Amino acid sequence: MKKIKVAIIGASGYAGLELVRLLARHPGCELAALTSLEYPGRTFDQVFPALAGLVNLPFSGAAPEEIAARAEVVFTAVPHQAAMGMIPGYLEKGLKVVDLSADFRFKDAALYEKWYQAHTAQNLLKETVYGLPELHREEVRGKRLVGNPGCYPTCVILGLAPLAQAGLLQPDSVIADCKSGVSGAGRQALLGISFCEVNDGFRAYKVLEHRHTPEMEQELSALAGTRVKVTFTPHLVPMSRGILGTLYAGLTESRAEEELRELYRRFYQGRPFVRLHPAGRLPDTRDVRGSNFCDLALRVDPESRRVIVLSAIDNLTKGAAGQAVQNFNLMLGFPETLGLEVAPFIP
Amino acid sequence: MKKIKVAIIGASGYAGLELVRLLARHPGCELAALTSLEYPGRTFDQVFPALAGLVNLPFSGAAPEEIAARAEVVFTAVPHQAAMGMIPGYLEKGLKVVDLSADFRFKDAALYEKWYQAHTAQNLLKETVYGLPELHREEVRGKRLVGNPGCYPTCVILGLAPLAQAGLLQPDSVIADCKSGVSGAGRQALLGISFCEVNDGFRAYKVLEHRHTPEMEQELSALAGTRVKVTFTPHLVPMSRGILGTLYAGLTESRAEEELRELYRRFYQGRPFVRLHPAGRLPDTRDVRGSNFCDLALRVDPESRRVIVLSAIDNLTKGAAGQAVQNFNLMLGFPETLGLEVAPFIP
Amino acid sequence: MKKIKVAIIGASGYAGLELVRLLARHPGCELAALTSLEYPGRTFDQVFPALAGLVNLPFSGAAPEEIAARAEVVFTAVPHQAAMGMIPGYLEKGLKVVDLSADFRFKDAALYEKWYQAHTAQNLLKETVYGLPELHREEVRGKRLVGNPGCYPTCVILGLAPLAQAGLLQPDSVIADCKSGVSGAGRQALLGISFCEVNDGFRAYKVLEHRHTPEMEQELSALAGTRVKVTFTPHLVPMSRGILGTLYAGLTESRAEEELRELYRRFYQGRPFVRLHPAGRLPDTRDVRGSNFCDLALRVDPESRRVIVLSAIDNLTKGAAGQAVQNFNLMLGFPETLGLEVAPFIP
Amino acid sequence: MKKIKVAIIGASGYAGLELVRLLARHPGCELAALTSLEYPGRTFDQVFPALAGLVNLPFSGAAPEEIAARAEVVFTAVPHQAAMGMIPGYLEKGLKVVDLSADFRFKDAALYEKWYQAHTAQNLLKETVYGLPELHREEVRGKRLVGNPGCYPTCVILGLAPLAQAGLLQPDSVIADCKSGVSGAGRQALLGISFCEVNDGFRAYKVLEHRHTPEMEQELSALAGTRVKVTFTPHLVPMSRGILGTLYAGLTESRAEEELRELYRRFYQGRPFVRLHPAGRLPDTRDVRGSNFCDLALRVDPESRRVIVLSAIDNLTKGAAGQAVQNFNLMLGFPETLGLEVAPFIP
Repeated sequence: MKKIKVAIIGASGYAGLELVRLLARHPGCELAALTSLEYPGRTFDQVFPALAGLVNLPFSGAAPEEIAARAEVVFTAVPHQAAMGMIPGYLEKGLKVVDLSADFRFKDAALYEKWYQAHTAQNLLKETVYGLPELHREEVRGKRLVGNPGCYPTCVILGLAPLAQAGLLQPDSVIADCKSGVSGAGRQALLGISFCEVNDGFRAYKVLEHRHTPEMEQELSALAGTRVKVTFTPHLVPMSRGILGTLYAGLTESRAEEELRELYRRFYQGRPFVRLHPAGRLPDTRDVRGSNFCDLALRVDPESRRVIVLSAIDNLTKGAAGQAVQNFNLMLGFPETLGLEVAPFIP
Repeated sequence: MKKIKVAIIGASGYAGLELVRLLARHPGCELAALTSLEYPGRTFDQVFPALAGLVNLPFSGAAPEEIAARAEVVFTAVPHQAAMGMIPGYLEKGLKVVDLSADFRFKDAALYEKWYQAHTAQNLLKETVYGLPELHREEVRGKRLVGNPGCYPTCVILGLAPLAQAGLLQPDSVIADCKSGVSGAGRQALLGISFCEVNDGFRAYKVLEHRHTPEMEQELSALAGTRVKVTFTPHLVPMSRGILGTLYAGLTESRAEEELRELYRRFYQGRPFVRLHPAGRLPDTRDVRGSNFCDLALRVDPESRRVIVLSAIDNLTKGAAGQAVQNFNLMLGFPETLGLEVAPFIP
Repeated sequence: MKKIKVAIIGASGYAGLELVRLLARHPGCELAALTSLEYPGRTFDQVFPALAGLVNLPFSGAAPEEIAARAEVVFTAVPHQAAMGMIPGYLEKGLKVVDLSADFRFKDAALYEKWYQAHTAQNLLKETVYGLPELHREEVRGKRLVGNPGCYPTCVILGLAPLAQAGLLQPDSVIADCKSGVSGAGRQALLGISFCEVNDGFRAYKVLEHRHTPEMEQELSALAGTRVKVTFTPHLVPMSRGILGTLYAGLTESRAEEELRELYRRFYQGRPFVRLHPAGRLPDTRDVRGSNFCDLALRVDPESRRVIVLSAIDNLTKGAAGQAVQNFNLMLGFPETLGLEVAPFIP
Repeated sequence: MKKIKVAIIGASGYAGLELVRLLARHPGCELAALTSLEYPGRTFDQVFPALAGLVNLPFSGAAPEEIAARAEVVFTAVPHQAAMGMIPGYLEKGLKVVDLSADFRFKDAALYEKWYQAHTAQNLLKETVYGLPELHREEVRGKRLVGNPGCYPTCVILGLAPLAQAGLLQPDSVIADCKSGVSGAGRQALLGISFCEVNDGFRAYKVLEHRHTPEMEQELSALAGTRVKVTFTPHLVPMSRGILGTLYAGLTESRAEEELRELYRRFYQGRPFVRLHPAGRLPDTRDVRGSNFCDLALRVDPESRRVIVLSAIDNLTKGAAGQAVQNFNLMLGFPETLGLEVAPFIP
């Protein structure tokens, strides 16, 4: 198989590390460049001894010339704002880009600017696509720039998309109560995520203020054909990986649970990474750990005409690096699942 | 201070153990009898070496004569159904009883029987009280039998009571998304709560089916003066103790966040165990660990006229044993906080 | 590539589950039969939803006829004693067997019987080999029955083998202070490994009594050419996977640290799963998680002429299922690393 | 009871926080001043909401005049070097000091300077005492300056003191393999102790280089009357609190296990915080969590004439703040156990 040379910009963060873990075994690519601001002059396996013997590339600089000389595709796993500063340079050099930041997730620059800051590469927004392949697979194919979705939005949008598209979602009823492992906060020296401040505790954070909210609303509104509002509450779980979304929505029309399950089944037909649980079984984040799966279950409360959807992903895989590889596969013409057919890591 | 002799029936479960931990230092009582079906003939500190040098009572039988010969007050920390089998015998012997099971929490036997099984001591229901002192303090005083609330209901009812009483709660809008530590499942040999099946994972369980639902509805409905329905979703957190409830409710009338905060402040005035966080601070289960506190915060989403209340308790303390001691204090005429003025256990 | 049909006997324990996880992606084999006493009539993915869409074989019986009709190689992941009851039947049917129990690890039946119970298949002991390929690779090739080593012995023997073989190990000086994740206790409903009994604690167990001791002594003595005694202390770490051995040994002759490192380097040349850390870096069980690696580091205390070796493995992979696959590869003539070239699972 | 006014210098670290937790309920003292470099102008409960309603002192400066105006006794919970910079000033103002740093633990300034840096208050060393009350209770009484022991040394010295004093310890045989919870690293923003870098892993650190080594050697040598060398290996456990020491030592003379147990029993007679386990029971750090206990067990390997002692403490309590309170009690003439009679925190 033809091997595409890839670069990972920001390879020493958790999303970057997960990209390395996945791409090191991807039969269609070759790791050609890894960059990091924090570890100049060191090799990847010096910083991550887990990968010793597998990946010993040195961390290099991220200048477009340097990257273009070595790679064909770039994964940018750097913070928002930094990403849009670099990406135009990569594109000019003819590179394709999967961006894991928030910078190219929004169709509407004003929406981005409301939640983030001024957007300095607005001209690119019209050509990008929101890289959730379960919704936008065809648009991703062949693209040179894809905005890889946020972790929470991936969980929430996949959990509610079939209802939104079917017109069954009461637009002002959506509550997304989401719980994330700590790796979602990034690989950082912060007191608030130090072991003793997280272990054996549970808390909400950024209630009504989390920047992933507008992504959810953008995609669900587009599906529903009307403005869908999401009340989103993120929480921190004392675990490393995983997001469970408990999603509540009023139904516009009464539906039996099994009818909805059938709706979901049809919607996700041919989407290999979405697994719908049968009645009586509920997702566990452990069951998707390290994999690109999104596990879904649903329950209907007939009395309140409310549906509860449970949606589990690994925030670093389907919520970041795995989905980026899925987009890479589509952009390059590989089978969508290439390099991602890995069993979840249990126990 | 006069020392009341107390017995703990079921002292080798987690609620029983927490009772021992609290009562061993309570200045108004003396541990007189500890029973366990599992460890006959052994002493408490043989089973729980943590208490060596502090509590060395042998585990004894639970027969009413035996208990009455040694104690004045009984805490029953046994499963539902077992409790109502034993309690009439204790009452006949003149003992006072704080029951930690579900058997005496319901005013309406039919409601109990719908969720549990036949109630075999219905005659006692009319004299008992739902032992949530923040709501029923005066009724608890002097009672001989108190039904100690469930852990989840304590968390949820305290979180929503001010809204219910003020008529601000839309009766069909309440969602209680609750997350509990594993001790809530009891001290049991079960595969599903073994370390490797829980560690580094997160899952919901018993969605729409958990028996704590009718307790929440009973108390909130009584406060609201109308039937309040609760959509309750329990989850399992990889931690030992603690419950965080994320409670969503529609408001019948628009209210500013600070107005609601003032409503809560007034409602819990003189309730020493409820701590209302100021704007900008959110509860963490770690902050109440091992204490009888319930920490509350609230946020209003003006756009949706929806309030989000965060409510944190320790499931074994305020959610079980600590609240039982609080009820004991009220029943016996002690200050409500006696033996419970302990700092939370951090880090 | 030719696909060998394999059966896993005891596929619902953690070692069996890890075998499934590894073999599901092994290019040289096909899962043909999975057995379990606990889940008759259910499919693998019903019991382990993590594998949904990947492995949906039903659990079947373990009778030799049934297995021989479907498979060529059998992995027995059942308790000791049960294993030696079944294995002769499989061999008679012409199957090859990798046994993960202790039953075929000892050359000397008397030693086995001292620590376990009567050995009922002693005639097979002379033809088996202790399946630690770093020591016995050539003997494993082509064998029909291999006794796969215990998890702790794998960690300890690999940590000390170079010293033993070089005659540098004081035979009565060896201390193996080992720390294991909880999966080492198996997938069981036991109070002692329930989450709340393990979380946030640390303890030793079976001090001087653990059955893995004689394995360590057998192999180190054989290498040293003299009887080596091991003082072995196992401990339980609140984590799911991994063993770290901190190994202390007196040196028969003074050696500089770098000399010993060179000795290890030579000893493990051509052993792809042993990674020797350079000076200044220490193993972490996280760095080998889910992989077949054994990471080693060593420090010499010149004052006491004592060496400290740190040895890290994943107890379920190199300590059980991964090593079994390594043996399978050698028995069947595959490359030793086939199906095992997986990056460790971090973070 | 007379209330002594106390100040805690460095009250926002974990040892300082644990002092607050303990002293807030100590019947013989009143918290008069809390200092922190990090949170000037904030109150204690703003930084630690767990203590809301219990401790609302503002963080103040640490100048001797300021402290002397408000307190009689000072606990210095600041890093070494900082401590010896401040303490002479406090003593000049007539304050008594319990120092939790390493600065006043050594009798020999040269030993301190070998492992730390230049000692700038050497004149005070001759009047201080190593505040391990089980060894030096009488010397602590009435002292104005006590050097509170390190966490690991407390664990190790208590574990081996009876053998050292009895002349049973082979002086070059001692190995202290110790495992600590993460709070031992302090309350800091460091990548290496962030949740995802610690969770579900286990590792050694500072092998042969940890600064707690000379403390152990100082005290054990003094007891033995000969130079005792300790090979000390610290490890990091994914838990918040607790140290388990697994201590190995050769015996100068053969002794039966029960004889040694009797030796320990006599040695620790009248030492209320040391609990010796009977044969067949082993310490767990959970059993001492939040308490000032040190739990000990011992096993003799007759074949190797080696003893294995298991020693468990809570690093923040007996290993730091609890022991500091114990020293405070002795310095001030209170009963040794005052304020420390708390049940360990389980589960």
